Formats: sequence, C-alpha cells, structure tokens
Amino acid sequence: MNLLEMKQEECLELLSSERIGRLGCSKDGQSYIVPISYSLDENYLYSFSLDGQKIEWMRTNSAVCVQVDRLVAHDDWTSVIVCGRYEELPDQIGGKHIRERAWSLLSRHANWWEPGAVKPMTHSPAPHLFYRIRIESMTGRRAIQK
Amino acid sequence: MNLLEMKQEECLELLSSERIGRLGCSKDGQSYIVPISYSLDENYLYSFSLDGQKIEWMRTNSAVCVQVDRLVAHDDWTSVIVCGRYEELPDQIGGKHIRERAWSLLSRHANWWEPGAVKPMTHSPAPHLFYRIRIESMTGRRAIQK
Repeated sequence: MNLLEMKQEECLELLSSERIGRLGCSKDGQSYIVPISYSLDENYLYSFSLDGQKIEWMRTNSAVCVQVDRLVAHDDWTSVIVCGRYEELPDQIGGKHIRERAWSLLSRHANWWEPGAVKPMTHSPAPHLFYRIRIESMTGRRAIQK
Repeated sequence: MNLLEMKQEECLELLSSERIGRLGCSKDGQSYIVPISYSLDENYLYSFSLDGQKIEWMRTNSAVCVQVDRLVAHDDWTSVIVCGRYEELPDQIGGKHIRERAWSLLSRHANWWEPGAVKPMTHSPAPHLFYRIRIESMTGRRAIQK
C-alpha cells in the first residue's frame, strides 16, 4: 500500500461528492465529535443542527474541523481533514436568504442524515440552526494498492 | 424517526462490534480528527499509529474523544461518543507485554485499517506507537423508524 498526499482539487472533489462528515470541536481542551450532513459550496461547508452541546461549544470556540472519508478497503481509502471556522447563519429577516440557500444545498440529498435531523420547518417549536464552516485549510491522504 | 438515548451496555456493544472510529484531539483550541482502527478491551480502546501530528497533540493534551457509528439509513443509525484519556504504551522492555496484548487485540481484524498502517514490526525503522484511550464517559443515540 502506498500513501499519497492529495492535491487541493482532489480534496475538494471528495468533499463535494460525499455528504456525511465528522465535525470536531473542543471546549477547555476536551474534544467532541458528531457526525453531520453537509454540503460544500465554494469555500464553505453548510450544515444545520438542533441546538445542543456542539452548538454551545462552537459558539465558545469557533476553531473546528471536519473530517470526510471514503473507505473502500484497508488499502483503498481517501480521507480529508478541513480546518476552519464556525459561522452561525443569522435567524433574523436579514439572514433569511442565506438560510434558504443553505437549506437548498442540503436538501439536494434525498437521504441526508444528521442526529436529530428532521426537515427544518419555519413553524417548528424547536427550529434548526443553520451554520457553515469557512474552510481555512485542508489536507488529504489517499491509500492505493501497490 | 425517534431518537433514543442508549444505555451503557448498548454503547459497549457498538464499540465492541465495530473496529473503525474517529479520534478527536485538540491543541490550543484547534480540533483535529483522524480515522483509526481500534479494539475494545475492558475499559480501554487500543490502537496504534505511526508517529504524527495526532500523537504530538495527544501528548500535549490527553483529553480526547472517539466517535463510532453504524449508519444504515438516515432513519436507522447508531452513534456513540467516548470521552477519555490518551495513554501511550511504553516502548521499553517493561512495556513489551502490554504492547503485545494491544497487537493481539488489534490483529484479530484481518482488514483493520489506519492511515499509514502497516503491520507493526519490531525491526521497523519507523516503529508503530501503541496507545490506548481510557474510557471516562460515553453516550450514544439510536435512531429508529417510527
């Protein structure tokens, strides 16, 4: 098995073709990971969540990462790690456009998946919170059979 | 879809039946995630790695987490998050027994997987580093179809 460093465009190709990643955040030095559905658009990964621990943590510390992989076999896999900044999408009228854009991107996936996810409804008593991760750097590795 | 909090024994069942997880660590507030192969044994997750960024980070800050999931469909999945402490297994003669135990556990999986993984050889010029995560807490959620 050989390991190759991936080029930036190869990392982007993986990010755009997958839709489930693992979001990492930390608070007071303790790490936390949750699986998320996301959608790549330009330099951002869009996602949404029910309010919860990860949102509280990312509000306190916006330095997060998202890891995405495609595992075919132990000697055939690709993994990308994105480091970036958490940005909450505003809930006010001024933020309506960007929230709709986020939902439009995410709803392209018929079977998107997120813990606790249900279709975000404007009338929901527990509205979903939309956010995006601004990509600051990314690296990837690909394993290929010898 | 309904979401259920998992009992501790259900979390352990998932951890023992899966073998790939995502390890989260952080340094100076920046999170980092890597996929790992692991093996559960009593209150520890055993794994190994080539030396690299995650090892440096975990030496500096041992508060880590491991997330493991089984995703069947958007309304049929299980996810567990373990918070724990990184413990490096010693390379000295006194640590031989515990390293061999770790390798014995991990090598039960014919197709274990880790970025950069090759079978750890005692004669390797770049020996693998064995470590374990001492489980301090774990929580899990299960989605079931309504």
